[in-house]
Amino acid sequence: MAITSEQQREIDAERELTHATRRVVSAGLEDILFKALPVLDHGFVRVVDYMGDDGAIVQAARVSYGRGTKKVREDQGLINYLMRHRHSTPFEMCEIKYHVKLPIFVARQWIRHRTANVNEYSARYSILDNEFYLPAPEQLAAQSESNRQGRGDVLSGEQAARVLDVLRDDATRAYRHYQELLNVADDGSVLDESQDGLARELARMNLSLNFYTQWYWKIDLHNLLHFLSLRADPHAQYEIRVYADVMLDTVKAWVPAAHAAFVDYRMGAVTLSASAMQVVRRMLGGERIDQASSGLGKREWTELMTALGRAE
Amino acid sequence: MAITSEQQREIDAERELTHATRRVVSAGLEDILFKALPVLDHGFVRVVDYMGDDGAIVQAARVSYGRGTKKVREDQGLINYLMRHRHSTPFEMCEIKYHVKLPIFVARQWIRHRTANVNEYSARYSILDNEFYLPAPEQLAAQSESNRQGRGDVLSGEQAARVLDVLRDDATRAYRHYQELLNVADDGSVLDESQDGLARELARMNLSLNFYTQWYWKIDLHNLLHFLSLRADPHAQYEIRVYADVMLDTVKAWVPAAHAAFVDYRMGAVTLSASAMQVVRRMLGGERIDQASSGLGKREWTELMTALGRAE
Amino acid sequence: MAITSEQQREIDAERELTHATRRVVSAGLEDILFKALPVLDHGFVRVVDYMGDDGAIVQAARVSYGRGTKKVREDQGLINYLMRHRHSTPFEMCEIKYHVKLPIFVARQWIRHRTANVNEYSARYSILDNEFYLPAPEQLAAQSESNRQGRGDVLSGEQAARVLDVLRDDATRAYRHYQELLNVADDGSVLDESQDGLARELARMNLSLNFYTQWYWKIDLHNLLHFLSLRADPHAQYEIRVYADVMLDTVKAWVPAAHAAFVDYRMGAVTLSASAMQVVRRMLGGERIDQASSGLGKREWTELMTALGRAE
Amino acid sequence: MAITSEQQREIDAERELTHATRRVVSAGLEDILFKALPVLDHGFVRVVDYMGDDGAIVQAARVSYGRGTKKVREDQGLINYLMRHRHSTPFEMCEIKYHVKLPIFVARQWIRHRTANVNEYSARYSILDNEFYLPAPEQLAAQSESNRQGRGDVLSGEQAARVLDVLRDDATRAYRHYQELLNVADDGSVLDESQDGLARELARMNLSLNFYTQWYWKIDLHNLLHFLSLRADPHAQYEIRVYADVMLDTVKAWVPAAHAAFVDYRMGAVTLSASAMQVVRRMLGGERIDQASSGLGKREWTELMTALGRAE
Repeated sequence: MAITSEQQREIDAERELTHATRRVVSAGLEDILFKALPVLDHGFVRVVDYMGDDGAIVQAARVSYGRGTKKVREDQGLINYLMRHRHSTPFEMCEIKYHVKLPIFVARQWIRHRTANVNEYSARYSILDNEFYLPAPEQLAAQSESNRQGRGDVLSGEQAARVLDVLRDDATRAYRHYQELLNVADDGSVLDESQDGLARELARMNLSLNFYTQWYWKIDLHNLLHFLSLRADPHAQYEIRVYADVMLDTVKAWVPAAHAAFVDYRMGAVTLSASAMQVVRRMLGGERIDQASSGLGKREWTELMTALGRAE
Repeated sequence: MAITSEQQREIDAERELTHATRRVVSAGLEDILFKALPVLDHGFVRVVDYMGDDGAIVQAARVSYGRGTKKVREDQGLINYLMRHRHSTPFEMCEIKYHVKLPIFVARQWIRHRTANVNEYSARYSILDNEFYLPAPEQLAAQSESNRQGRGDVLSGEQAARVLDVLRDDATRAYRHYQELLNVADDGSVLDESQDGLARELARMNLSLNFYTQWYWKIDLHNLLHFLSLRADPHAQYEIRVYADVMLDTVKAWVPAAHAAFVDYRMGAVTLSASAMQVVRRMLGGERIDQASSGLGKREWTELMTALGRAE
Repeated sequence: MAITSEQQREIDAERELTHATRRVVSAGLEDILFKALPVLDHGFVRVVDYMGDDGAIVQAARVSYGRGTKKVREDQGLINYLMRHRHSTPFEMCEIKYHVKLPIFVARQWIRHRTANVNEYSARYSILDNEFYLPAPEQLAAQSESNRQGRGDVLSGEQAARVLDVLRDDATRAYRHYQELLNVADDGSVLDESQDGLARELARMNLSLNFYTQWYWKIDLHNLLHFLSLRADPHAQYEIRVYADVMLDTVKAWVPAAHAAFVDYRMGAVTLSASAMQVVRRMLGGERIDQASSGLGKREWTELMTALGRAE
Repeated sequence: MAITSEQQREIDAERELTHATRRVVSAGLEDILFKALPVLDHGFVRVVDYMGDDGAIVQAARVSYGRGTKKVREDQGLINYLMRHRHSTPFEMCEIKYHVKLPIFVARQWIRHRTANVNEYSARYSILDNEFYLPAPEQLAAQSESNRQGRGDVLSGEQAARVLDVLRDDATRAYRHYQELLNVADDGSVLDESQDGLARELARMNLSLNFYTQWYWKIDLHNLLHFLSLRADPHAQYEIRVYADVMLDTVKAWVPAAHAAFVDYRMGAVTLSASAMQVVRRMLGGERIDQASSGLGKREWTELMTALGRAE
């Protein structure tokens, strides 16, 4: 359960209020504003604020006095052009703020993106909740043989069960000890009046990396799309990819034209090196080429054939 | 005249529209949204979008599910605390977007602040307007004798008149030649059908640094306050300070609690070095100190005496 | 033991090589280059590369063609002036690169500084070593009563022993299970040939936050000094402060003039709000002031009295 | 003439000094260190400092204790892999510092790249030299008909001569008036003892955008390559492209393996959208496709055919 009933009440109360504004409004995003969109077993993504819409991209590109928008079709064309030619500054004119609950090991990957504003829940100041991530059985994969940083086959049922037992037991014990070190009970009361609790900033070190943390995370659309292009990618670790997937849906609700351009010109796009382009040109000229005659390394050859839909 | 009547109509049309939103709203900022606030002879500052309010700072500091605000007094206290202890990340959770028209030499100072998003009107793509900055007579100051990057006394009337004549004549000629190089007339038509116009990206180099440009400029509150602390400072050049002053007013309308904290703990604050603090402690102990016995350099001694209201 | 004998050999081999360069050289930093400076029980800081020296700050401030340095005294004066007036860009012209080994919970605080370049050891790609942080007994402090994010009194011997037992046992078990999940033995061989190992990117989540990680961390001098002003501060958590202290020593060896200015004008400096300055001026005028008549809040009054050396 | 004889003496003196260092050294870059590489009529690029080499990229990717390098071939392979998969952080571990002299309108484009450190010569503090850019006749191109921000045919001799006359006359007059406003002669002496000079921060506004400025500019290799991929591109304005071209040569001298990877996987690479890849796959399957049946817009179709070497 990601959200307590008290938190849900706070969210509901927030959603009920409506204000009048002169700012542009994204109907799609207003619809889901503040809602906790579930991710993994205890995590969520909530959009808590935003600035701008597709029109704001167009407006900035034109440095106009009013809305700057023309026909929808022309706006989509301009946005496609900006995306294709990597004119990134107009996309920076939109901003979004998320509230995210996520396992610490995911947070450690996520924070490597430096172009966002972050306020994380402080375990120096407060006590972390007793919530940790346990993978679903179908996510318990063996180490990949071919990819040093990837997953291979799913583990057998028996082995998977053992993995879950270990993860659950160790996290459970870690949290119980965390409370003992802090000298606090589940309800926040003191456990043993004759003792002091260890400082929170020290006790937290006993928790494992699958415990959940949370933060406010704010970013502009250009940098968000860059983040998503890396983290919604099949090479990204599953546990961060599911967050990126949910966020990609919020982008679609927010700025549909920018989302469409992103899907075509970035997510689905392929970058071919000068050497690879040479190979494609030769193939189009009717030449039969294999890896040896291509001049490409094995890995790059395989990547190219996959991109061309010609992998054996 | 900063704004044409057509631009004013676009702005007015924009101001008339109101939408419903679940987002927090700053009443003070809604009031002036889109309005062109005049600066210098042809410049302006317009707030064109914003995200967050004082409550968003508090909410991020507390990583809360709902608004996170308590009593106004407590919120002001927390914001003061954050400002005093330079906990800057909660202030990054508010964002504002300006449309600014400003002389190029001011834009060159301004752009040195790298933590903003910018879309500038492109003189490669479009033709700049015939608008250049001429200082008001009381701003025509001599080079300061004591400060290598400051102004001294105001020039005499006769000399001031000569300065204005030079600036006006050279800018007027520069623009006329700009049009001739481009081969365009005032109304945008071709001047001489038998000739080609020079590429816009080249012709612009004939314009002087007092011509106006414009841009969309978007920044978070923390970085905006840092910008304002440097540019609303008496050491800043007058021509950028007047922009900062107007923007400081928009901050007051937007986030009054953060503005109050900023004025007390940053704008009006004084940072005393370890050595200067030593001097203050000795003075409070009743010792009579002059520069020689203070251990401070001349310049720092003078700065300290000024800060203490004891400059001769 | 922070460094294996093989690693020490690699470091020694690196230190033996000398090259000729036209670049400026910092004798103080060359002396300690590559050396592992120990921090905490298994951590270290190593300077692995640098660019510039005190002269480079002066040179950039003057945009000069040659070294740009004048007499040492004048250079110190200019550097003091730049530091005092927060002219930060010349300090950005020096760059330093560290190799740091540190507990994960320290790394999580550290990474919040976004203005550095980082390459962290990847636990998706490789297996983490069996090294975790155990505080020294004198660091095992109770939660502070007065400061929600600080430490109070040191725990009694008996309680401290229990804390260490818990931390040691849980970390030891976590690592043993980590190896079991990975299906690898201490020497890297497979534990059980009949089983697959869990993917490294999953298994790591069983480790606790006191395990050590390591990274290359590169930053310019201005941003390093900002980092140090926050992390070498008494309010910083002890476990990151000891890293900052060692790094401050490397700054002293590298750029002694900038270090001296930093100590006087930043580390030892006090920023007084407009209201606090008013109080100081009244006190210097001979007025007797207490908190009630000062107009300051209780907390700010106490901070001011402490800064003035007048705390009761 | 970009460099005075006095400046050349300072540079020569700097080049004569050699120091011993434990840091890695790039022989190729040491060779040209401090030399003014000429660009345009009065500009230059000088490498004034650097940190790291190809090995530093490899070392950071491996987070190694010593040099981390293996065989040259393996290192090139790893660098290619990092470049192809946009693993950018290891490239951030190399840093370079340039001293650049460039026209103000070029500086205005350049400074839009925010990820560098900059110290610019201050025209508030000092007097700018009498040097302005005049394009070579073959660069005097008409506005392009097809590309709103590009150049078309070169102007006729007569028209080109007129353009140069205008640019030269206006810049010459602007500088003479600049000196009159400042009340200084060529040799720095006062022109008219009975008058004050206008403040430098005001007088500079009379200069046109083709006057030269200069700065120290420091950047890491990843961001430098991003800058070069945009500015050494055929779509970039000629006057900034020539700077990028010279800097690309310095990159080749500095980090030849990274340079080779950059040329193949970035400069010469082509990014094809999902739709464009669909077209390529159909063409490889033997289908005959024209713009109408491709599903691509006209512009994108033309771009694709050009990339495939099939433009009519």
